[in-house]
Amino acid sequence: MDERLKKQLEFALEIDKEKNVFRQTHLSGHGRNENDAEHAWHMAIMAYLLSEYSNESIDVGKTMLMCLIHDIVEIDAGDTYAYDPEGKKTQKEREEKAKKRLFSMLPEDQGQKLTEIFEEFEDAKTAEARFARAMDNLQPLILNNSNGGSDWKEKGVRAEQVMERQSRTKYGSERLYEITEKIIQENIDKGSLK
Amino acid sequence: MDERLKKQLEFALEIDKEKNVFRQTHLSGHGRNENDAEHAWHMAIMAYLLSEYSNESIDVGKTMLMCLIHDIVEIDAGDTYAYDPEGKKTQKEREEKAKKRLFSMLPEDQGQKLTEIFEEFEDAKTAEARFARAMDNLQPLILNNSNGGSDWKEKGVRAEQVMERQSRTKYGSERLYEITEKIIQENIDKGSLK
Repeated sequence: MDERLKKQLEFALEIDKEKNVFRQTHLSGHGRNENDAEHAWHMAIMAYLLSEYSNESIDVGKTMLMCLIHDIVEIDAGDTYAYDPEGKKTQKEREEKAKKRLFSMLPEDQGQKLTEIFEEFEDAKTAEARFARAMDNLQPLILNNSNGGSDWKEKGVRAEQVMERQSRTKYGSERLYEITEKIIQENIDKGSLK
Repeated sequence: MDERLKKQLEFALEIDKEKNVFRQTHLSGHGRNENDAEHAWHMAIMAYLLSEYSNESIDVGKTMLMCLIHDIVEIDAGDTYAYDPEGKKTQKEREEKAKKRLFSMLPEDQGQKLTEIFEEFEDAKTAEARFARAMDNLQPLILNNSNGGSDWKEKGVRAEQVMERQSRTKYGSERLYEITEKIIQENIDKGSLK
């Protein structure tokens, strides 16, 4: 097998490990914890279905790819819970190292391309990145809401924390941010969020 | 909330159930059974990375979307193992029913669009569908091969069965079919496939 294809298949096998990185979010129906691969799959389909609500016109294929790979670094760096200030402190460093190791497994052109897409998501400076990040917020929100806000209750998360994080959804979609605010308010009203 | 967005969000929540549809394939490192959402995520990234090996030029974004949704009907119809002749008999009927129920949850234009993409995959008459189907074969093949062919051993699958199914990979990619043949031969040689 030639070197290029060999590298591509080795990377394809390596990312299988993302299915073992579990998040704090639980599946609907009070299911088990969700893993990163499932979360990314869900976000990518949502990006396709909801693209009409993006504030700006987006390249949907690129946004989907961004959703699919945005958590790959967690294979090495692990999942950092959105409301964990200690984990947040070392997150950047852990993820930088992982990014280098993982994407350098690919042929150089593809490793560079995926690094760019990954960094574009992180930097949130393009319409695609802002919309993908809105999906990164909205996807766990609808799961958690379907479970009566149990993920927040379990961790004692406060409304201000959720509002701060979720407020960035508006940079991707004003319309989806309206829905976000409505869901948060309902959870405050019924006592799931303090 | 308007009716259109309500339907889209209800569908987004409904497909969460795909994460509970488990396949016969095991994750690398002799892990647990893989579920449909993980499988679809993996296929979509592989479609992006390996698109240069498609026999014909393809729309990569469309191929990725096809990979992401190709198993959605299994939410109702369940997974039918590739080497289960009894299950295969009723598969079409079960999946038709599921397709109607699930895609009719969406606004009509999107339901129709996803039905078309789903059927395009099933019919394998376009370059995108043939390449997506090659991914549907190659993705479990690399996982199973990484586990020494244990999925085949466990089920007593025969080499002719694997070769018949995997032979369709060549319609999507001659190059990836060469690799497929090599992997199958290696598993026959070491006794994982009878």
